[in-house]
Amino acid sequence: MSKSAGCCKRFLHYAFDYETPKTLVIPSLGVGFVFRFTQFLVVMYVVGYVCVVQKAYQDTDTVISTVTTKVKGFAFTNTSDTEPRFWDVADYIIPPQGDHSFFVLTNMVVTPKQVQSRCPELPSPSTICVDDCNCVEGHSDPRGNGIQTGLCENYSTTARTCEVLSWCPLEIDTKLPEHALLAAAENFTVLIKNSITYPKFNFHRRNILPHVNSSYLKRCEFSRLTDPHCPIFRLKDIVSEAGEDFQDMAVKGGILGILIDWSCDLDWWAGECLPKYSFRRLDNKHPVNNVAPGYNFRFAKYYKTADGEETRTLIKAYGIRFDVIVFGTAGRFSIVPTIVNLGAALSFLSLVPVVADWFLVTCSRKRDLYSRHKTTHLTEDIELFQNEI
Amino acid sequence: MSKSAGCCKRFLHYAFDYETPKTLVIPSLGVGFVFRFTQFLVVMYVVGYVCVVQKAYQDTDTVISTVTTKVKGFAFTNTSDTEPRFWDVADYIIPPQGDHSFFVLTNMVVTPKQVQSRCPELPSPSTICVDDCNCVEGHSDPRGNGIQTGLCENYSTTARTCEVLSWCPLEIDTKLPEHALLAAAENFTVLIKNSITYPKFNFHRRNILPHVNSSYLKRCEFSRLTDPHCPIFRLKDIVSEAGEDFQDMAVKGGILGILIDWSCDLDWWAGECLPKYSFRRLDNKHPVNNVAPGYNFRFAKYYKTADGEETRTLIKAYGIRFDVIVFGTAGRFSIVPTIVNLGAALSFLSLVPVVADWFLVTCSRKRDLYSRHKTTHLTEDIELFQNEI
Amino acid sequence: MSKSAGCCKRFLHYAFDYETPKTLVIPSLGVGFVFRFTQFLVVMYVVGYVCVVQKAYQDTDTVISTVTTKVKGFAFTNTSDTEPRFWDVADYIIPPQGDHSFFVLTNMVVTPKQVQSRCPELPSPSTICVDDCNCVEGHSDPRGNGIQTGLCENYSTTARTCEVLSWCPLEIDTKLPEHALLAAAENFTVLIKNSITYPKFNFHRRNILPHVNSSYLKRCEFSRLTDPHCPIFRLKDIVSEAGEDFQDMAVKGGILGILIDWSCDLDWWAGECLPKYSFRRLDNKHPVNNVAPGYNFRFAKYYKTADGEETRTLIKAYGIRFDVIVFGTAGRFSIVPTIVNLGAALSFLSLVPVVADWFLVTCSRKRDLYSRHKTTHLTEDIELFQNEI
Repeated sequence: MSKSAGCCKRFLHYAFDYETPKTLVIPSLGVGFVFRFTQFLVVMYVVGYVCVVQKAYQDTDTVISTVTTKVKGFAFTNTSDTEPRFWDVADYIIPPQGDHSFFVLTNMVVTPKQVQSRCPELPSPSTICVDDCNCVEGHSDPRGNGIQTGLCENYSTTARTCEVLSWCPLEIDTKLPEHALLAAAENFTVLIKNSITYPKFNFHRRNILPHVNSSYLKRCEFSRLTDPHCPIFRLKDIVSEAGEDFQDMAVKGGILGILIDWSCDLDWWAGECLPKYSFRRLDNKHPVNNVAPGYNFRFAKYYKTADGEETRTLIKAYGIRFDVIVFGTAGRFSIVPTIVNLGAALSFLSLVPVVADWFLVTCSRKRDLYSRHKTTHLTEDIELFQNEI
Repeated sequence: MSKSAGCCKRFLHYAFDYETPKTLVIPSLGVGFVFRFTQFLVVMYVVGYVCVVQKAYQDTDTVISTVTTKVKGFAFTNTSDTEPRFWDVADYIIPPQGDHSFFVLTNMVVTPKQVQSRCPELPSPSTICVDDCNCVEGHSDPRGNGIQTGLCENYSTTARTCEVLSWCPLEIDTKLPEHALLAAAENFTVLIKNSITYPKFNFHRRNILPHVNSSYLKRCEFSRLTDPHCPIFRLKDIVSEAGEDFQDMAVKGGILGILIDWSCDLDWWAGECLPKYSFRRLDNKHPVNNVAPGYNFRFAKYYKTADGEETRTLIKAYGIRFDVIVFGTAGRFSIVPTIVNLGAALSFLSLVPVVADWFLVTCSRKRDLYSRHKTTHLTEDIELFQNEI
Repeated sequence: MSKSAGCCKRFLHYAFDYETPKTLVIPSLGVGFVFRFTQFLVVMYVVGYVCVVQKAYQDTDTVISTVTTKVKGFAFTNTSDTEPRFWDVADYIIPPQGDHSFFVLTNMVVTPKQVQSRCPELPSPSTICVDDCNCVEGHSDPRGNGIQTGLCENYSTTARTCEVLSWCPLEIDTKLPEHALLAAAENFTVLIKNSITYPKFNFHRRNILPHVNSSYLKRCEFSRLTDPHCPIFRLKDIVSEAGEDFQDMAVKGGILGILIDWSCDLDWWAGECLPKYSFRRLDNKHPVNNVAPGYNFRFAKYYKTADGEETRTLIKAYGIRFDVIVFGTAGRFSIVPTIVNLGAALSFLSLVPVVADWFLVTCSRKRDLYSRHKTTHLTEDIELFQNEI
């Protein structure tokens, strides 16, 4: 045998010699049972909880969605304060596009025929004056309505206030009707069209389900019990499902979330991947801790008079903003999370012999016997004995 | 040696005695090869699939994005129905702000000079009447256009319908032009500016790439082959990349998704983190199962006549809503997922001896020899023998 | 003993015999210390880094949020170019609804009294003409302002340009004021109301904190040092926190992100789950690589003259768009990630004996002794010896 061949053989032995633990087989049903039972518990945990309940073998993706909304309905208002007026979609939906967030006007303070001019401020502790000396020209109070001209004018027969440069007449927003002007809005309906995508799984779905036909969609109305998949909602139902009263909410406005949950298991029930609707009021109902409770905003319609002067109608619009919020996570089998979770579970299987060994050397009847055969104590004596050899 | 010192020594031995399995080295190339090969398979799997393909060593974050859009182009319409009219951006983009979602008006039904008044309903089975008895004062049909006054009026020379209180004249939305009015919109261009952030990694990027200069941006146009990073898109190209025909889609409207995918690997190719554009029609093209196919909404322009009466021009706007949807996940090396995935893989390495041992005691030629040395059977005989000692 | 009983017993033994490794206890403090110390390192790593720092035992969820904004303030403009004018919220906030994204008008180019007619183009190399031969009827230059009529008209006393059909007079957008018209906008304030939900944990929270009372909210203003939880922000402060100058930004416009971070640990500090505000300019500040730097859009107000002709006031609006971007991830203890991470860590514990064994057979003083007792080499001699028996 040449030297290099020997070297090569030694290397082969080094690389391919197989080192395996020496084992002791113990024919004890007790210990064996403890071992198998602990193993069984770990496997049950993995199969039962991690796989079935938590679906840890799945890769997940978050939903991408697009929403279109279309409100239908009209109303007629005829109160003592305002002229009789007919309202349709173009009047009360702002903005008109039918995005994922739409606003239904239910109450308002209208200030028509405003022009850029001068008028006395609304009376308040900081605006009431006795004579011009109380008013500072050019001063603008952030809580006021315009820039002071320095004059003190009669606001009414009893009060004098500083004159301001502003859009006049000023809005008096305390004149909000106590009952919502468009109380009839509760019977308006909204059609919500929602398409979703899980890009990672190339999965597309719409909330108008494939088996639903056109004639059903023309007459149906969402009802949790009878029509849970009809995408047409009556506003009153949405609000009452959220635990609120429409007429209450309509006075000062508010924000209502229409939550669409598209959480799906795409492994088994892709056909069963259906939207789940729920409704929740999103702003704070109670006026505690609340600047400007409810929901309102101001907008204006601009006109020009025959002689070219700009006038506007200022509207402080109260109403309900409906936010369609689409969320969800889809899961589908994927090899990486499966490997990771199985691996983690296998780690626990490697704990099982630790338990069984502990039982063996402490609880079993023949523990001394087992212990003696399993464990060799390398004592000082042996060392001495070895050294002598 | 005092008692406490002995006690202490015993504790030290208990804590620091090292218990190690006794092993048997088997100089068999066959078994050794099976062992090494199985080890190699597991390591290859970990390196190849988990690390390279699935990048399981990375922590991930979801994109946060802001989008600005700016449409350019104008059109001139001159059909038999309408007056000649010139359209620019301020006319056909609704809303004008250039958000992540913009609507290009392509077709419309215009009902000018509407005022609050009374007029006969559009003829339909539920509105046709013979005399006033068929009409109920105050009745409002959700599918109608206003509140009935109780009168039956001549709609045309042949039909009589119930009179309603509404914005009159009523819109006749069946008069939708068969060819899109703003067919020229296909040549409009849109500049999309998109800034993204991965907050977890403090990574910011724009879709206008750093190496692109201003003069290129002034003349370029997106093309998947020649200009894949130009952020200016011709509307016709967007629609045709989505597999649709612009002129078809323009008649009844629709929703088109401009998807920008910012999925990036920030470890190696942060410089290569580029947006990938794709286009997809988001609403249902086919009129099956579809209430209100296409995309349209109504809005009104309000005017005041010289004598202060409010009139409006109602526009039922059909067009294409472009939704810019930005998504993506970035990954960057992180110690925790690395540990978790390595740990899981190590668990599989601990399975390797199980495989090799099975091969050893069942398939190898000298299995009896190996088995005899590896395993000690603690038989009844030994037990008896031990007990006798 | 019958045959079947023997068979059954053999099966029981096969299933329940417990095979345990034979071990050798080595009473060496050195090796024991290496073993315990390596174990300690792994446990410290698991407890310290994975659990405390990275919270790998938590399940996570992404925030769902709704935002309302309300701007307050007014301004008065009086420059040489424009008429004196008073501006309030309804004038300068576009769109008015107070969504998560709001635009504050700060500068503008107004082109009043536009009507559909014909007028000479703005002079540019492609529009200047000498006589009608230079102009093509029906030609529309994408960079121009209308459709050419084929005539060449006097634009000024010195220049002749092609006549176009368009909204005339044409907008001259180079006349942008050098100082922002609504410079006073820097003192406007905005109230941001933000409600969030972590649907997986059924956790709801608002940015108006429960302990804050109404009177505080009426007078407070966000300040990172003194009022970090006041939801009312002065626009100037927002812009300066983003490292920009308001007056600079107001001239050409821009986009400013108000980032609200709701990242929370719901295990221990659910009460401490507070919004963290930060501000960042989202568009590119520097005019390099930038088509249309800043942020602007065109919109029009439509009027009707007494004789029914439509006129419009075109406004090229420059201003700051504030995007409220809400993000965050909440974590809460969950059994699955805990199991997975503990499992992965246990895998590392199984590496510890490998380290200790290596130390035992290579570095310890009595390595030969230990090696001899731990490992049995199944040499050829033994094989021969065994075969002879």
